[in-house]
Amino acid sequence: MNWLDEIKWDADGLVPVIAQERDSGDVMMFAWMNREALARTAELGEAVYWSRSRKKLWHKGEESGHTQTVHELRLDCDNDVVLMKITQHGHEPGISCHTGRHSCFYQRLEDGGWKAVEPVLKDPESIYK
Amino acid sequence: MNWLDEIKWDADGLVPVIAQERDSGDVMMFAWMNREALARTAELGEAVYWSRSRKKLWHKGEESGHTQTVHELRLDCDNDVVLMKITQHGHEPGISCHTGRHSCFYQRLEDGGWKAVEPVLKDPESIYK
Repeated sequence: MNWLDEIKWDADGLVPVIAQERDSGDVMMFAWMNREALARTAELGEAVYWSRSRKKLWHKGEESGHTQTVHELRLDCDNDVVLMKITQHGHEPGISCHTGRHSCFYQRLEDGGWKAVEPVLKDPESIYK
Repeated sequence: MNWLDEIKWDADGLVPVIAQERDSGDVMMFAWMNREALARTAELGEAVYWSRSRKKLWHKGEESGHTQTVHELRLDCDNDVVLMKITQHGHEPGISCHTGRHSCFYQRLEDGGWKAVEPVLKDPESIYK
């Protein structure tokens, strides 16, 4: 049995994927993969997601140079969520977020509102030329 | 504007939620919340999910005693994924998984197959009496 067959793909043929920076433990981003994206990710050792908005494979870093080396793939107890241990390339510290921040999870709930609490490390205009 | 209104709920009125153990950085589980579950989580300071299979609110630990204190709520750049920093209670080390393991992400891709690589810390039969 192929390891891809063991995944419980959702009604759209997708699985949610969490990317965690291996060295810091930081949760960097959350995205989706279809079967082809996950197969490519495993084959390349680099994150290839499925863009739900653009409806196509999205090799992370293809425009920004901010690729992600995938060290390890994990699957949860229900076989329907993937966790990846990654190294984020292209900047030090790593930038996973399209806003130029380290992690996509930069908004913290404080006093009844979401506050951006992490710095922009690089101007997004200069990331996506 | 209410902070709950800023979340982009999906077509089913849900948002994906990642629970990360604050002290270890380990990603413990992934689940879903509806508006009421997230409101209750913030109010209680304990994780309350929406069970998609049972179609009801699920106060984590209500049966097992393995509750989760929520220290921090984070929202991603697209306002459609929540990350929580938690402490897992009821066992040392914490057990988030219904299989009696520390984390739900205990299967690792190795040599083309998913291998369970984390120990069962407590027999699930004795967790859910």
